[in-house]
Amino acid sequence: MKSKNVKIVDCTIRDGGLVNNWDFSVDFVRDTYEALNAAGVDYMEIGYKNSPKLVDAENCGPWRFCEDDFIKEVIPEIKGTKLSAIVDIGRVDPTDFLHSDDSPFSMIRVACYLKDVDKAIDLVTSFNELGYKTAINIMAVSNSINSHLIDALQKINESPADIAYIVDSFGSLFNRDIEHLTSLFKEHAPSKKLGIHTHNNLQMAFSNTLHGIELGIEYLDTSVFGMGRGAGNCQTELILGHLTASKYDMKPILKLIDERFVPLRKEVEWGYNTAYALTGLFNEHPRSAIAMRKTEDKDNFLGFYNKLTSVESHLDIK
Amino acid sequence: MKSKNVKIVDCTIRDGGLVNNWDFSVDFVRDTYEALNAAGVDYMEIGYKNSPKLVDAENCGPWRFCEDDFIKEVIPEIKGTKLSAIVDIGRVDPTDFLHSDDSPFSMIRVACYLKDVDKAIDLVTSFNELGYKTAINIMAVSNSINSHLIDALQKINESPADIAYIVDSFGSLFNRDIEHLTSLFKEHAPSKKLGIHTHNNLQMAFSNTLHGIELGIEYLDTSVFGMGRGAGNCQTELILGHLTASKYDMKPILKLIDERFVPLRKEVEWGYNTAYALTGLFNEHPRSAIAMRKTEDKDNFLGFYNKLTSVESHLDIK
Repeated sequence: MKSKNVKIVDCTIRDGGLVNNWDFSVDFVRDTYEALNAAGVDYMEIGYKNSPKLVDAENCGPWRFCEDDFIKEVIPEIKGTKLSAIVDIGRVDPTDFLHSDDSPFSMIRVACYLKDVDKAIDLVTSFNELGYKTAINIMAVSNSINSHLIDALQKINESPADIAYIVDSFGSLFNRDIEHLTSLFKEHAPSKKLGIHTHNNLQMAFSNTLHGIELGIEYLDTSVFGMGRGAGNCQTELILGHLTASKYDMKPILKLIDERFVPLRKEVEWGYNTAYALTGLFNEHPRSAIAMRKTEDKDNFLGFYNKLTSVESHLDIK
Repeated sequence: MKSKNVKIVDCTIRDGGLVNNWDFSVDFVRDTYEALNAAGVDYMEIGYKNSPKLVDAENCGPWRFCEDDFIKEVIPEIKGTKLSAIVDIGRVDPTDFLHSDDSPFSMIRVACYLKDVDKAIDLVTSFNELGYKTAINIMAVSNSINSHLIDALQKINESPADIAYIVDSFGSLFNRDIEHLTSLFKEHAPSKKLGIHTHNNLQMAFSNTLHGIELGIEYLDTSVFGMGRGAGNCQTELILGHLTASKYDMKPILKLIDERFVPLRKEVEWGYNTAYALTGLFNEHPRSAIAMRKTEDKDNFLGFYNKLTSVESHLDIK
């Protein structure tokens, strides 16, 4: 298995924040950091580093903004596990960023849709100048038009980004799709390391991540107990249990799950569910399934299928 | 995708019976049959056809015995979906079986461990003489010694069994293991069709089933809402949603899930869980995880890991 250069990027607080509006206590996040560090996880993506000026910040937890002084208080000592944050096009102010020497963050990732790749490259260029490792995460890649994706990859190849990420936002991809995308990324962005971010709509998150490793993808996004939007992500504990490198240890994550994530899962829902499987099968954004799961009709999967496929589906699905 | 000759064998009532002691009402099973038939599923494995004389039958539902007269009352008309039953070595009396012309069953499968392959072949020989389609399901194949498996496959190759099944009882197999086993089965039992029965301990059940299709495996075991022992099986609804053959339709199963399986799942537990992931990672029978999930300590995954790996683990895990 080609796992020698693999890095695990745990996205629990960041992607999980999409489930609970980033309502994690400082102690919860500290416990998560300590467990990830004890488990040998390479990066913890502790949140979004968007600007409160550019986001509707009402009721949002602080992990949506990750201001440097606040993060320094939360994690006063960066140990083996480095910190990462992600930013959104149009919601980030690059002047908010310190030089990486003065920041708790080592890596800044830019999430973008294909149409915004030029903006993403501008951002990674500025972050690169500030000394950060950078990644461009192409969201909803299962929904991209091939020629547009190739154009974007060729631009990314010329950019200072360190990593180009395959992001299966809709959880619609199968192993053979990961193969196709990886070969496209390798052909058109050969100067970049590759990363993969999966969602578990079709219970393919772990499988696709493992397949990515076999294909030479080095950066693996995961989350504890799979916590992430909708069907959630590839489980950190499964990847730790599977990889054989001496530095990895799943036991600290098992303890964290029992103490922190089992109770949280009783309050908020994430993870595989038939409704998410349906949006995955139709290669759609999970928002309609997330909305449906909050209604009284949350187990009416046939009704949901009919809405997804009806000609009036735009009228009655959020 | 090599899905042209694929047959879906839904095992919900049979493998799901291991969760609730086959405590399904007649109406529940009838609804399941009608939904499977409407969905175009090829076979419904409606239970075990073991002998009440040879099994501790206390409190067991009738689907553990599947007596012909009873099944004829439950499903008076066999429609497109044919019926299958499975038998266990040592718990079946071959003289209980009618000729297939007089029986509601089309297929009888024999579940066996490697050491019992001769007994399994005796049984399939007698069932074959009675006109049934037959399969030998080699359980716990992830735990088999390679040379023993090869010996067994060579014997099966000379037997009248129609299908040789890869059964991942412990849910420990990855895609590359399915590849290895399929090539072994093809090499040493080339006269047989191949089948696959997966468990979802590592969230690989659907992925491994899809990989099996690519490798030419034709008989796919699934269950509705994944209902089956421990982590459960590959979901019938996912396979139906994925296969493109015109005869398959996932919608009747979605309705059945809402009406029958969502309420049942609130009463009894099955499906992916960190405890099952651990027995899967250690390539162990899930019985210790099933027992642990029935205790107050059911979310203490670190404690469970420590028990699985302690030298005294035989003392305190059922």
